[in-house]
Amino acid sequence: MQAELITIGDEILIGQTIDTNSAWMGKKLSELGIQVSQITSIKDERNSIKNALVTAEHSTARVVLITGGLGPTKDDITKHVLCEYFETHLERNEEVLEKIQSFFKERGREILETNNQQADLPKGCTVLLNEIGTASGMWFERNNTVFVSMPGVPYEMKHLMDEQVLPKLKENFQLPAIFHKTIMTEGVGESFLVEMIKDWETSLITEDIKIAYLPSPGIVRVRLTSMGSDLKPLKEKVLRKAKELYHLIPQHIFGEDDISMEEALAKLLVKNKKTIATAESCTGGYIAHLLTSREGSSAYYLGGFVSYDNQVKIETLKVSKDSIEDEGAVSKTVVEQMANGARNLLKTDFAIATSGIAGPGGGTKEKPVGTVWIAVASEKGVISKKFLFEMNRNRNIRRTAMAALSMVRRIL
Amino acid sequence: MQAELITIGDEILIGQTIDTNSAWMGKKLSELGIQVSQITSIKDERNSIKNALVTAEHSTARVVLITGGLGPTKDDITKHVLCEYFETHLERNEEVLEKIQSFFKERGREILETNNQQADLPKGCTVLLNEIGTASGMWFERNNTVFVSMPGVPYEMKHLMDEQVLPKLKENFQLPAIFHKTIMTEGVGESFLVEMIKDWETSLITEDIKIAYLPSPGIVRVRLTSMGSDLKPLKEKVLRKAKELYHLIPQHIFGEDDISMEEALAKLLVKNKKTIATAESCTGGYIAHLLTSREGSSAYYLGGFVSYDNQVKIETLKVSKDSIEDEGAVSKTVVEQMANGARNLLKTDFAIATSGIAGPGGGTKEKPVGTVWIAVASEKGVISKKFLFEMNRNRNIRRTAMAALSMVRRIL
Repeated sequence: MQAELITIGDEILIGQTIDTNSAWMGKKLSELGIQVSQITSIKDERNSIKNALVTAEHSTARVVLITGGLGPTKDDITKHVLCEYFETHLERNEEVLEKIQSFFKERGREILETNNQQADLPKGCTVLLNEIGTASGMWFERNNTVFVSMPGVPYEMKHLMDEQVLPKLKENFQLPAIFHKTIMTEGVGESFLVEMIKDWETSLITEDIKIAYLPSPGIVRVRLTSMGSDLKPLKEKVLRKAKELYHLIPQHIFGEDDISMEEALAKLLVKNKKTIATAESCTGGYIAHLLTSREGSSAYYLGGFVSYDNQVKIETLKVSKDSIEDEGAVSKTVVEQMANGARNLLKTDFAIATSGIAGPGGGTKEKPVGTVWIAVASEKGVISKKFLFEMNRNRNIRRTAMAALSMVRRIL
Repeated sequence: MQAELITIGDEILIGQTIDTNSAWMGKKLSELGIQVSQITSIKDERNSIKNALVTAEHSTARVVLITGGLGPTKDDITKHVLCEYFETHLERNEEVLEKIQSFFKERGREILETNNQQADLPKGCTVLLNEIGTASGMWFERNNTVFVSMPGVPYEMKHLMDEQVLPKLKENFQLPAIFHKTIMTEGVGESFLVEMIKDWETSLITEDIKIAYLPSPGIVRVRLTSMGSDLKPLKEKVLRKAKELYHLIPQHIFGEDDISMEEALAKLLVKNKKTIATAESCTGGYIAHLLTSREGSSAYYLGGFVSYDNQVKIETLKVSKDSIEDEGAVSKTVVEQMANGARNLLKTDFAIATSGIAGPGGGTKEKPVGTVWIAVASEKGVISKKFLFEMNRNRNIRRTAMAALSMVRRIL
């Protein structure tokens, strides 16, 4: 079963709005076993909308979900075009009109004629009542294909999808079972990872499991998907193959199902009742930010230092002035002293320290841009590691943070 | 001049990745006077890619930009389909091969045959060298239409667009003159802002200038656009109207042309030769991260403290234990002491301190989630301000950071 999504709105095409609706719908539909075969974004313009409808109706998709263009203003023309397309006309729906009027009354807002007109809906379609807004959903069927038009406001669309569209789709179609599993890996690039698990990857073919590699800085997500008629055996075989990965690359797996590195580490810290502190130079507070982005972070994160200036390293973190002068701030000795200093000050189980040249300036021949030292202090002492990342400042900061979190994770 | 965008990747259709590339490209193209007429997202699948190419070639668009499917793994098939479509074949490009090999060598990484194969490119296309990655861009022309294929990795795509694709498009096509000016405002919500400048907004109509309000947490961008045949008069009238805004809302304007708050503040600090430090509780290192995201930040940012645990406040920042016990960590007294403490320790001109309840937990009746105290210490003493933001943790962190940077900016 395939679906196409059509999102209508000038703001998407000029880049003013990022289309997050489609991703949400894609996820929901694929959980139901409906594959989105195409997403098309077009302008609030009659011909564009008509063409998109024609193309979708002639595609292999049996479900066409349309969002946007249902507001009360002049540029919202979706329902007029739908009337043309399905050869019908608008008709005032009394139930919807009543809802709109009470919606305004409850909010103490004056109702305008343009608002009343939102109750004018194409005759013959099934109206999907919108409980949290004034634009109704519309359900059409033709040539064995379902067309649903919904408002583009994300929370209204989501409400209509969850409450009405998805349940109706399940009723209307016999859907296949589908099962996804994502394994999160770190500390290995995509091509190396592929090389490390290539025999295993080949074995997926006979099991009829599809694989996808999704890289982001420092991380590669490995996603397995299988589809069939019965969920139970699909789930079993996908989970069995996923489990094999834990034997092949145990050191690189930090979690499942799109968990972030900081979230995975936070869970480990909470589980083991451990606390952590940070002493950051090149990452400039980014690791602290990641560790505190999550609710409840005060349970494991006690605090940190951003030691951009050497004075902070010397005076607060008690790094030896001689070490900085002799070996430079970006060195094994200094980063280890930073980690020990932060751990001693905050009396935590772990302390992470980073010192490096994020760039684009500041590189030398011996220490080019991208050179980073990371240290982790714990009750077992301090370990440190040198990395050579790349030329891009923000990616260097991001990769350093991922590598630092990974070092703590591996100790845990 | 119209363009179509084609984004290729299963991860977009199943909703695992939100397509942010299209919005970025749409913005860049419309700045050049090229209108995006359609965005199509499809699977890494031969027929889908071919169909999308055919449809785009037969549309009114004369530019077709394609992203995704250029990685080294098996599911990346874009260049093979492009070969079929343009009736050509792959040929190893020695210059690209050398670049790929030195890319790996510099990073001390082993090179695999799949990496070498990224140098196999369609014969006859113009290769766009990728300076920061291993997947080249490809430029094709047929039937008066330009097709460009780029990697889907956002920073590689952006680099290729800025350095090569956009300049080449300007050369190849006679584009209308278009002039945009964006004025960055802060400290006022969208509806209030609209109300404050409504007469001025009306005066834009007779000048044939379009206006757009683009809100994000703590900030509203006001964008003026005018299009015509000759750039000079367009530029003059847009800049004249933009200048009027500086008389209407001087206190709310912090910069122009999509400059970020941190960038605007950094420039002011550098210009005035001032330094800054941070002492963060609820923002957990985010302000430090913003101030250090920018190249050359060590000129003005000396360091900071993330005082999540009260011990850091007391021992390092010298906040009085009694103040914390009597008034709580989220209070005027404590946040002012934090700012003074950080400024004294690092001997900076300014120090920012934040303390608040980011949520979702931790709120009380007196201090609900979203309550935030911000203080700025300077040679003139310390000032502080209380805010009540909202329920969302990440938005609260972001809005606190913006408000804190704004307080420093206003002192400068």
